[in-house]
Amino acid sequence: MDNLSLQNPVFATYVIAATIMILKVSSMSWLTVVRMLQVKGGYRSPEDLKKTPLNPSPDPSQLGPNEPVDRIRRIHLNDLENVPFFLVAGFLFVFTEPSLLVAQVLFYTYVVSRLLHFAAYFTARTHDTRATLWTVGSVILIYMTVRTLLVALGT
Amino acid sequence: MDNLSLQNPVFATYVIAATIMILKVSSMSWLTVVRMLQVKGGYRSPEDLKKTPLNPSPDPSQLGPNEPVDRIRRIHLNDLENVPFFLVAGFLFVFTEPSLLVAQVLFYTYVVSRLLHFAAYFTARTHDTRATLWTVGSVILIYMTVRTLLVALGT
Amino acid sequence: MDNLSLQNPVFATYVIAATIMILKVSSMSWLTVVRMLQVKGGYRSPEDLKKTPLNPSPDPSQLGPNEPVDRIRRIHLNDLENVPFFLVAGFLFVFTEPSLLVAQVLFYTYVVSRLLHFAAYFTARTHDTRATLWTVGSVILIYMTVRTLLVALGT
Repeated sequence: MDNLSLQNPVFATYVIAATIMILKVSSMSWLTVVRMLQVKGGYRSPEDLKKTPLNPSPDPSQLGPNEPVDRIRRIHLNDLENVPFFLVAGFLFVFTEPSLLVAQVLFYTYVVSRLLHFAAYFTARTHDTRATLWTVGSVILIYMTVRTLLVALGT
Repeated sequence: MDNLSLQNPVFATYVIAATIMILKVSSMSWLTVVRMLQVKGGYRSPEDLKKTPLNPSPDPSQLGPNEPVDRIRRIHLNDLENVPFFLVAGFLFVFTEPSLLVAQVLFYTYVVSRLLHFAAYFTARTHDTRATLWTVGSVILIYMTVRTLLVALGT
Repeated sequence: MDNLSLQNPVFATYVIAATIMILKVSSMSWLTVVRMLQVKGGYRSPEDLKKTPLNPSPDPSQLGPNEPVDRIRRIHLNDLENVPFFLVAGFLFVFTEPSLLVAQVLFYTYVVSRLLHFAAYFTARTHDTRATLWTVGSVILIYMTVRTLLVALGT
């Protein structure tokens, strides 16, 4: 069967995991917007101090550090450091023709680890909790990548 | 027909949109370089204060904040938060076999919205203008992703 | 032959280059962790000052700038600005059906240029050295992208 078809359950599993992760990262942008509107700050460009419908009472302090907004930005940056590489590594891993069970365990555990990492970061749990959850995702990413590399080298 | 062939007009449309977006993001790197050379600043590493052919008169202020350079970096970061996910979401959207018209409208509107977002950010238009243009791209990205997820779940 | 098969040597070459780059970027995350443990600093969230097994003696200075850690973060950010776009551009370039030699030269030169860029940045060579190595990768990326765009437009 063609590897790259939604009829291939391994590829469909990848597509489900990948789209959930893309929605997760896109949510970070919207969450930043929501927080900026809530705290009326966390802006970064000088022109953001112009009076507009969305910012009726500008104040220079709006450009300063703002922990509620900056927290979402840190979570977002952590996503940028991880998710794009999962999206490509997971896709290439499909070509190694793993069993459906292996694909499901790896893809869905990755998704769950990233959602829990978000929850831990969002609620300001300790660095150790965050690091543990991040490590789960990172190990899955590295495993899939090394496995794909070895299969490609062996062909 | 094979989905992933340049003979498939939907895939060819994706490839055109994707390559334009990659060139757009790559241009941000070069624009940062151009601005750093123009203002002779906006550097970030201590070693950038060494005297070299490209920096004949080093000065500690070269490592400080520099709005012309930092503006391009903010635009670049906004790209990193959006474009890699469009590249993958658009690719996976091809597997849902949309009509060519739907694909063209979504892919090309995304490209235009990002180019206008760049123009608005580059010329320091208000946050509201920038936010509106960003929203167009974000909604397209989320629509394609949700649609792909639903199709993958339904197979 | 099917373009997207590990039996296609051009695609296998892409997969090898792509997985090496993903491992390279993932290493930056781990290198950040190693450095944070070494210098016991470079943290970014207020909750990182809580006393935990990994941080038995918290100190407010741990949240300040920390050059050894920040250097890895700058290298990492440079990766984020470049590698995801190489991963997609290289993949789409496979559809232009380049000769194996061209694919090998472009993909592997890119990988080597990024590894040397890392070495130069890590050891704090001059900006000029770093910029030269970055330029090699950027030119390859732009060449592949323009070539793919032209082929897609011509079909």
